[in-house]
Amino acid sequence: MRSPDERRRSDRARTAILTATAEAVAELGYAKTSIEGIAARAGVGKQTIYRWWPSKGAVVLDALAVDQGDVEWPDTGDLAADLRLVLRATVAEFADETTSATLRALMIDMQQDAALSDQVHTRMLGPQLAATKRRLESAQRSGQVAPGIDLDVAVELVFGPIYHRWILRTHPFDEAYADALTELAIQALK
Amino acid sequence: MRSPDERRRSDRARTAILTATAEAVAELGYAKTSIEGIAARAGVGKQTIYRWWPSKGAVVLDALAVDQGDVEWPDTGDLAADLRLVLRATVAEFADETTSATLRALMIDMQQDAALSDQVHTRMLGPQLAATKRRLESAQRSGQVAPGIDLDVAVELVFGPIYHRWILRTHPFDEAYADALTELAIQALK
Repeated sequence: MRSPDERRRSDRARTAILTATAEAVAELGYAKTSIEGIAARAGVGKQTIYRWWPSKGAVVLDALAVDQGDVEWPDTGDLAADLRLVLRATVAEFADETTSATLRALMIDMQQDAALSDQVHTRMLGPQLAATKRRLESAQRSGQVAPGIDLDVAVELVFGPIYHRWILRTHPFDEAYADALTELAIQALK
Repeated sequence: MRSPDERRRSDRARTAILTATAEAVAELGYAKTSIEGIAARAGVGKQTIYRWWPSKGAVVLDALAVDQGDVEWPDTGDLAADLRLVLRATVAEFADETTSATLRALMIDMQQDAALSDQVHTRMLGPQLAATKRRLESAQRSGQVAPGIDLDVAVELVFGPIYHRWILRTHPFDEAYADALTELAIQALK
């Protein structure tokens, strides 16, 4: 068993590592952030980082606090209102330059790094999509989504257009866009 | 003025370069294809390639014959039928491993290479999205798409879910998926 002193030291090191990681990613972007660089900033050895995290992707995802395991949608009983809220927030997130740059770097690296891709799916994307599906199931039960609709396709109908606009940089992100998309999606799912 | 002989030599060199490029991309993928490699395969000097193409992206796009400047949608007067056809073809294209791998490599490089991104937008994506918008405009005139709908948002509602599924590798691509998406999109645009 660890002594209280050891536990405190350990907690301090973890916090230092997460802070250093967040700073490094904000300054350098994901691609240029390295375990070595994080270790140097945090004043720990590389092996201390690897004791807790298997990869750069894992510690970055922790540092970004994107561990959205218990992400939940609002459920006011009004799907259109809840969807508008979530899409406005999502669009604002993608419109934010720092968040967008980090997500873009993660997305590029995911295409070439299967372990990172797994981490992002398990800890960020999967929970988000599952929460969306749960909200649509609830709407299907209350008659706001038609019974026959495949909810996996419906989830992508909601978020796919945002990714399209973001990745391909076709048009700007604003609230009017979030609301137009909300209206089309609600109409599609009726 | 060039003599007929010069023109023939020039045409032969262009053809050799385009063939070599297509072979290199199929074998190595976009990222590992280089102007040097293309020149060696084609038996020409690098400067011959740069005489006609400003970048690797430009010659690859030519070689892949993705110059879709006059891409046009079917217009049978029945939007649902035309959309089903186009979405089935699009889904089949993304499901094809070679095409998918090339597009994936292009997409990754686009995020880091503004010149390539411009080329892909100007020559591939832009014309595709514009053709989709024209078809939706025609459907709006004939009353199959509601008058108030923003067609830029509508275009992304059609293709965004496919990109989402493809980039994030969330679910398989098949005809049932194309048809489910067609149905939701048609319902959204009514």
